[in-house]
Amino acid sequence: MIQLLDNYLEGRWQTGTGSGTPLFDPVLGTELVRVSGAGLDLAAGFAFARTRGGAALRALTYGERSAQLARIAEVLQGQRDAYYDIALRNSGTTRNDSAVDIDGALYTLTQYARWGAKLGSARCLADGAPVKLGKDGSFQSAHFLTPQRGLALFINAFNFPAWGLWEKAAPALLSGVPVVVKPATATAWLTQRMVADVIAAGVLPEGALAIVCGRSEGLIEALQPFDLVSFTGSADTARTISSHDVVLRHAIRMNAETDSLNSALLGPDAAPGSEAFALMVKEVAREMTVKAGQKCTAIRRVLVPQAHAAAATEAIAAALAAVKVGNPRNESVRMGSLASRAQLAAVRDSLAALTSEASIAWAGRSADLVDADPAIGAFVMPHLLKVDDGDAAQRVHEVEAFGPVATVVPYRDVDHAYALARRGCGSLVASAYSDDPAFLAQAALELGHAHGRLHFVTPAVGKTHTGHGNVMPMSLHGGPGRAGGGEELGGLRALAFYHQRSAVQAPADVLAKLAESAAPWPGETG
Amino acid sequence: MIQLLDNYLEGRWQTGTGSGTPLFDPVLGTELVRVSGAGLDLAAGFAFARTRGGAALRALTYGERSAQLARIAEVLQGQRDAYYDIALRNSGTTRNDSAVDIDGALYTLTQYARWGAKLGSARCLADGAPVKLGKDGSFQSAHFLTPQRGLALFINAFNFPAWGLWEKAAPALLSGVPVVVKPATATAWLTQRMVADVIAAGVLPEGALAIVCGRSEGLIEALQPFDLVSFTGSADTARTISSHDVVLRHAIRMNAETDSLNSALLGPDAAPGSEAFALMVKEVAREMTVKAGQKCTAIRRVLVPQAHAAAATEAIAAALAAVKVGNPRNESVRMGSLASRAQLAAVRDSLAALTSEASIAWAGRSADLVDADPAIGAFVMPHLLKVDDGDAAQRVHEVEAFGPVATVVPYRDVDHAYALARRGCGSLVASAYSDDPAFLAQAALELGHAHGRLHFVTPAVGKTHTGHGNVMPMSLHGGPGRAGGGEELGGLRALAFYHQRSAVQAPADVLAKLAESAAPWPGETG
Repeated sequence: MIQLLDNYLEGRWQTGTGSGTPLFDPVLGTELVRVSGAGLDLAAGFAFARTRGGAALRALTYGERSAQLARIAEVLQGQRDAYYDIALRNSGTTRNDSAVDIDGALYTLTQYARWGAKLGSARCLADGAPVKLGKDGSFQSAHFLTPQRGLALFINAFNFPAWGLWEKAAPALLSGVPVVVKPATATAWLTQRMVADVIAAGVLPEGALAIVCGRSEGLIEALQPFDLVSFTGSADTARTISSHDVVLRHAIRMNAETDSLNSALLGPDAAPGSEAFALMVKEVAREMTVKAGQKCTAIRRVLVPQAHAAAATEAIAAALAAVKVGNPRNESVRMGSLASRAQLAAVRDSLAALTSEASIAWAGRSADLVDADPAIGAFVMPHLLKVDDGDAAQRVHEVEAFGPVATVVPYRDVDHAYALARRGCGSLVASAYSDDPAFLAQAALELGHAHGRLHFVTPAVGKTHTGHGNVMPMSLHGGPGRAGGGEELGGLRALAFYHQRSAVQAPADVLAKLAESAAPWPGETG
Repeated sequence: MIQLLDNYLEGRWQTGTGSGTPLFDPVLGTELVRVSGAGLDLAAGFAFARTRGGAALRALTYGERSAQLARIAEVLQGQRDAYYDIALRNSGTTRNDSAVDIDGALYTLTQYARWGAKLGSARCLADGAPVKLGKDGSFQSAHFLTPQRGLALFINAFNFPAWGLWEKAAPALLSGVPVVVKPATATAWLTQRMVADVIAAGVLPEGALAIVCGRSEGLIEALQPFDLVSFTGSADTARTISSHDVVLRHAIRMNAETDSLNSALLGPDAAPGSEAFALMVKEVAREMTVKAGQKCTAIRRVLVPQAHAAAATEAIAAALAAVKVGNPRNESVRMGSLASRAQLAAVRDSLAALTSEASIAWAGRSADLVDADPAIGAFVMPHLLKVDDGDAAQRVHEVEAFGPVATVVPYRDVDHAYALARRGCGSLVASAYSDDPAFLAQAALELGHAHGRLHFVTPAVGKTHTGHGNVMPMSLHGGPGRAGGGEELGGLRALAFYHQRSAVQAPADVLAKLAESAAPWPGETG
């Protein structure tokens, strides 16, 4: 008997109607659980979150809410083995890849608990000091951030069922904003289990956390003024949400993190044989294969000096050849499956689009699959593509194959490299590998406008850098344009989305009184 | 012969095709000039702005660009009389009301020139200090804002043809972002004249400033990735723009400032006879009549304790009765006309909607019009409305009559007052009048989430406060929800819209090198 996972809404577990949607083991093809969010009274559930959850959270200080985050991290830590088991079964990931999601979530929660504690007994945040309006200084202006009073609806992606929830929920709950999460159906099990554990532990006030699994009909319709939406997924779906009448009518604040054609840029100084070259090769191969390339931050375009294009392609292909792909239950396996057969089909479609203009430099052999049946499992071997003319190429800058796929694109000079990076029309991250700090500082000025994060590696940090694709909670996550235009994380900067910034123009004594309730923002989050 | 105003695009003055759209004197009904933006090659003009204008501006430092702002202010100062003449003729405003627009523009430009000078030779902005990623500190993360590389399209409202351009252009140009302005047709003359003066003075590099008058067809279609839109106007039009396929497809960053049902809140302590009561009455009457109530920040809802509702209504009506309305050429006149007959029709429609649930406490008599013919001029007398049950009322919280119209709404206790203020579903500004600093500090915590600005008046600042509706460049302008969700001004905070925030993860020496090009943001803007 397959379990139908319940939804938590209106302060109680509720079973959706119908037989639900099945979730599968993408390696073995077996059905695991089912989810259904059908038949729920979303309006009542959302109202409960806003009134009960919001009021209870706002009655607490940042410090008290940060203690709840710490307690959540503790509760989750206690069930870590269960989460690894679910990830293995439902996401088809190796233990190391599951860690990116699960331990990433715990680390992020712990960081926000620590940063939030510094905000102490405050109830709002002070953005800068008061300035005088007029000469005598009796009347002044200061900026404050006060917590939003709607709920935060998270519509999340399948690739990070654990981290995707908590990287958003940590700043939301710390801000005093109740959370409703709608996980992607294919991997909703882990999210649902984590929510269940936190609810069972009684860490949060009633209404602070809710989960709706399965189809998303009616979620946007149930939003009201002052609610927030944070979406992670495809640019197409983001457009559907942001052009929804309810979102437009209430000017619902929305954060989107969508498609991204991230680049890795080999510096012009980094010839084959150099340390920077080796670091680039290692990072590209790693990024392509971690979580089978199913990271929105993964490297999709590898920009290399024309003279080194062949050598770079060859070296990356060699690194990929060493990666064993197959059933993550086998300890020799370094890369597992995609999350679902649907994703496999999507990656194959993307590969077909890309190879209409790119050639294949390396594609592995599915005969090398370890302990897995390619006819059943959602497996795709690492694919390294290459194009000769990055300017003429179109799809390589537009099509995000959400799997272990990247394309080598040669560049003539650094200005050409920057232009190629910008062809992504806004990306989450670009990395560069070089032994020339002046070049990298200049690259930041050139690439910043088109990227939410830049990741620069020199030989001096070959062992200490945090990785192109790893999202560190102290650094902004999000990118302009095609990447959705959103901003998440970045330490306490993340709180801005869950607050309203207001100018308060008032007599100096009123501002002084208000300042007693405020902590400085964004403050230090090192 | 009526003049057809030219457009400035692609570095040259261009005459639109057709006979154009006439602009009128809203007092006398006479035709003044015509505008046409038809037949222009917008794609070529926008490309010129991005490539020529953007590159030239970015070649300069913030300090150099701030010097250009100072020079623009000088040029405009030299033509001030001409602007007052155009405002009188095309906007129907008294000299004091024209000053809000014209001198407001000059003041804002001057402030940004001053603040920008402090950024000196920098080329990007540092948002906080670096933090360590990992224990040894060799690899760090820091946030920087780098200038956007698209153009900024301003689609502006009719009520501020001068300030509306420069309050946006000052931070845009300071950021190195070229500007294309599309003024509202009815009052485009003043904007066009100011642009012409600045172009003639040769202050800005080619392509940095362009103007398209008349209809707006094709403007959004001509946008490309990394372009920006700043819109001021109706919520309906904002929705049309933000749901436009081009905006969605490129995730074009948009700032919107739209409808706002701003409130004035009389504190529970402020009984008739108190100074705070008198200050509220004075401010409401002033806000209703300045620019004939055609300010997005004007007071629309007057929240007063139930016990004082009758007294407050009576006192405001008495203050309104003293305001002479008519031809602004007559020196006794304190309030001129609306900007156009179209606006008159719109205000009459709004009044009809409001009076379906509100009663009229004061409406003046059009027989009292000074030197003006109500059959020709776009005149509406100040209208003070009142409702008995603010909870049952709907339109008073939704319908923005964009003229000298406000409604008194009684409240039971402060929580009820806050709830009524929030019924605006997000507003630009709320003001409160009280002699109780603790109440006002609490009101900030309660009202902040729903307002972009709070303006608190105690008797101590009765003479020094800057006014409920005056937009000071050091304070944020914009509000959540119905008000559009935008953020303008707020000192150098305004630069954020014209920059991309990025996390730069890099070796410490690379960040140090980059920091040499950066100024701290937002810094002090007092």
